[in-house]
Amino acid sequence: MSYYFSKTIQASFDEAIQRATDSLKKEGFGVLTEIQIHNKLKEKLGVDFQKYTILGACNPAFAYKALQAENKIGTMLPCNVIVQDLGDGKIEIAAVNPIESMKAIENPELGSVATQVTDMLKRVIASI
Amino acid sequence: MSYYFSKTIQASFDEAIQRATDSLKKEGFGVLTEIQIHNKLKEKLGVDFQKYTILGACNPAFAYKALQAENKIGTMLPCNVIVQDLGDGKIEIAAVNPIESMKAIENPELGSVATQVTDMLKRVIASI
Repeated sequence: MSYYFSKTIQASFDEAIQRATDSLKKEGFGVLTEIQIHNKLKEKLGVDFQKYTILGACNPAFAYKALQAENKIGTMLPCNVIVQDLGDGKIEIAAVNPIESMKAIENPELGSVATQVTDMLKRVIASI
Repeated sequence: MSYYFSKTIQASFDEAIQRATDSLKKEGFGVLTEIQIHNKLKEKLGVDFQKYTILGACNPAFAYKALQAENKIGTMLPCNVIVQDLGDGKIEIAAVNPIESMKAIENPELGSVATQVTDMLKRVIASI
């Protein structure tokens, strides 16, 4: 299984971010952080990079369950959804696959939460 | 190998965040995001949780290399460092281990970047 789920749409960059945010909301995820990678790379390294935003998405009830099961799981939270401009009006949106990123952690209780969140993030991408 | 590196220190919570931030800076990581998990859980679910902050740390040069090697790697960036209050004046600081979280990705070029960043994050924790 891949470490992400993705979809490419025809949209403006800002519209794609809005659609990703709306789709996350329907599954109970709020966006806690937003990083404009292209701006950071320009500012810090002076390089040009395609528009690339990282949304840090969190479903509070599931984050709470995950933290109760595994108190260092914050090293892998929130769940990221990236939006990147591929050019020609194509925007790719991809969500992390928590089952894969948390594979190294042996904890069945966390595994059950990760499986549910993975299904939710699959739906987030599918419904954009 | 564990999915994190950690250290427990005697300090105030705010002092621990400052020490983590300073140690990250020495290895070239800036803190791009800061999530107060305890505040979010209180606000959204009404539950009490120990003080728990997630710092989103990024070394721009290495992030750029990682993104060039693997353009969906933003689903796993920035590298998180958590600071949590264990009570009795004990504060635990833990950094994600990128080698483990990125284990599912078969990309030798990314692997080389992940190995270097893992060594840097080990030093960040060791020098706190």
